[in-house]
Amino acid sequence: MRIVALSEVLPGEPVTNRDLATQFGLHEQWLDGMTGNKSRYFCRLDSAPGVPKSTGDLAFEAGQKAMEAAGVGPEDIEFLILTTASPDHLMPATVNLVADRLGINNIPTLQLTSGCAGALQGLFTAQALLASGHRQGLVIGADTCLKMWPSAKDSRQMKPAEMVNFALFGDGGGAAVVSADKDGPGLVVEHLFLRGIGLGRKPAQIVKWFGAEGAAPGEAMGDEDYKAIEKHVPDVARQILDELLEKSTWALGDVEYVLTPQLNGVMTEKIREGLGVRPDQAVNCVAETGNNGNALPFIQLHRLMQKLKADASQKSRVMVATVESSKWIMAGMALRHL
Amino acid sequence: MRIVALSEVLPGEPVTNRDLATQFGLHEQWLDGMTGNKSRYFCRLDSAPGVPKSTGDLAFEAGQKAMEAAGVGPEDIEFLILTTASPDHLMPATVNLVADRLGINNIPTLQLTSGCAGALQGLFTAQALLASGHRQGLVIGADTCLKMWPSAKDSRQMKPAEMVNFALFGDGGGAAVVSADKDGPGLVVEHLFLRGIGLGRKPAQIVKWFGAEGAAPGEAMGDEDYKAIEKHVPDVARQILDELLEKSTWALGDVEYVLTPQLNGVMTEKIREGLGVRPDQAVNCVAETGNNGNALPFIQLHRLMQKLKADASQKSRVMVATVESSKWIMAGMALRHL
Repeated sequence: MRIVALSEVLPGEPVTNRDLATQFGLHEQWLDGMTGNKSRYFCRLDSAPGVPKSTGDLAFEAGQKAMEAAGVGPEDIEFLILTTASPDHLMPATVNLVADRLGINNIPTLQLTSGCAGALQGLFTAQALLASGHRQGLVIGADTCLKMWPSAKDSRQMKPAEMVNFALFGDGGGAAVVSADKDGPGLVVEHLFLRGIGLGRKPAQIVKWFGAEGAAPGEAMGDEDYKAIEKHVPDVARQILDELLEKSTWALGDVEYVLTPQLNGVMTEKIREGLGVRPDQAVNCVAETGNNGNALPFIQLHRLMQKLKADASQKSRVMVATVESSKWIMAGMALRHL
Repeated sequence: MRIVALSEVLPGEPVTNRDLATQFGLHEQWLDGMTGNKSRYFCRLDSAPGVPKSTGDLAFEAGQKAMEAAGVGPEDIEFLILTTASPDHLMPATVNLVADRLGINNIPTLQLTSGCAGALQGLFTAQALLASGHRQGLVIGADTCLKMWPSAKDSRQMKPAEMVNFALFGDGGGAAVVSADKDGPGLVVEHLFLRGIGLGRKPAQIVKWFGAEGAAPGEAMGDEDYKAIEKHVPDVARQILDELLEKSTWALGDVEYVLTPQLNGVMTEKIREGLGVRPDQAVNCVAETGNNGNALPFIQLHRLMQKLKADASQKSRVMVATVESSKWIMAGMALRHL
């Protein structure tokens, strides 16, 4: 499989720690030090026309930009995959509303429920579809926290542990056009694996959805076990990298770019150091974009691709390690830029 | 791809039209005539221990039964797919909680957001995974209306058009163990296609999810365009059947079993007649189980397989046509029982 082109979409203007501190009555310095994130982006219902306001909007724009970057039209796309943890509705799957807006029709469309490993889940599924005879497809990842925002009333009742999620997370979309034809520009996927590893492990991230009646009094929509995340994600990242190094027979020091799990500025930096990845190898924008879940790896690979394109002579090896702590998923990918 | 074994799960006792009429203050005869459904099953939080109470419970039990029927253990399963329109949470994907309960670990797990075409979406994805090198997997479909139930207060405000959904829909789970090895017992998939066909068509089914604050006053959780469904589903079913007949070069009169779109007793019967499918060819249990979405085709194929097994000499051809009206998806499958 070859990633022909990538895209990124971030809604509206960056939201700084000062903005968040003001809104939630938190300390700006505490947010700086706690998360290491400087900004993030959020969909807002009162945004100007044309600014994405939903997962579908983010996904549509990301898909459109990736197709433009690949120089392909809707008729060239043979399957469409959307990965998200925040669909606009339960039914229809958001992917099918996005397909309509992209002018895509008469092809298989799939929507995967996924979080931080979602981009690689989408690419993994795309690889299988290419193996079964399809030639080219579009994979999109998008998420928004829009329905997680508390009303003014409820935000006064939120604990700091809940508020800090808005400093960690953010909204965004990203996409990739993928092809079975390995010859051409872009990134060739040499290895890609995906495995649920949740046997006997408690979920470390829960996000609920509600019916018309909403939550019971005092019931939180989300819950994170940061201690479990801090403890296990670095270990799992190490396992992923080791497996990629073994399969590729590349030496870590020779790999030009490494994308490590993107939790927040502080933790991602710690994981990078622990793995022995040099700062100049690290692909990392979480401190600026926030953790926008299914979108983030696409956004980072998009920025990397821009950089690699700027220097046409640069042949590079790239490794991606993503860990989803919700119920523990590991996914790794090794790519070559030729 | 071969479907090695199938399973079905229906929670608790059947809920009759009399039961529903009493609960919602509707007329039993009106429900009989309107939907043609005689009963359905619903998850209830106050059910006895061991009775499924969630999508995860239904999926777990369906997966377990299909593995038992196939004579395989968790270590024999190389991928797990769950298709549902009613996940227990946004995160983690229910499939990963189910994997843990099934003792399945270290394999790819995928959860597809889907409705009436979900079973075939799952099998389509499984077929691609088998084409990419996996040898055996488990595909589960499950749905529950549990979070759609109104409180006593809200049910007094519901319109008959909303109440009638509970006569149409129902809860259930079903599963299939699938193998790349075509030799062995079960049903061999000869043709399988899946296509979104929603370009320019309005969604005919919308089901919303809410954050902690729930719906706005008077906002309905779901909306169905029955007129559009009645108008288009028979046409799309005809297209699917025509394509399957052309690809298989079978004559409709020679196909032993045909599973037509399962909306409700009345419409499914109309569609069957319109397609020229004889009553003895029809595979149809929606009038007894209700439309339980992602589960139903598995349940019906499970019942068909029981019947075929009882007569070991019976070589049969089977066709399945499913239409998802949410944003319009068509999916068809032709199988052989050898």
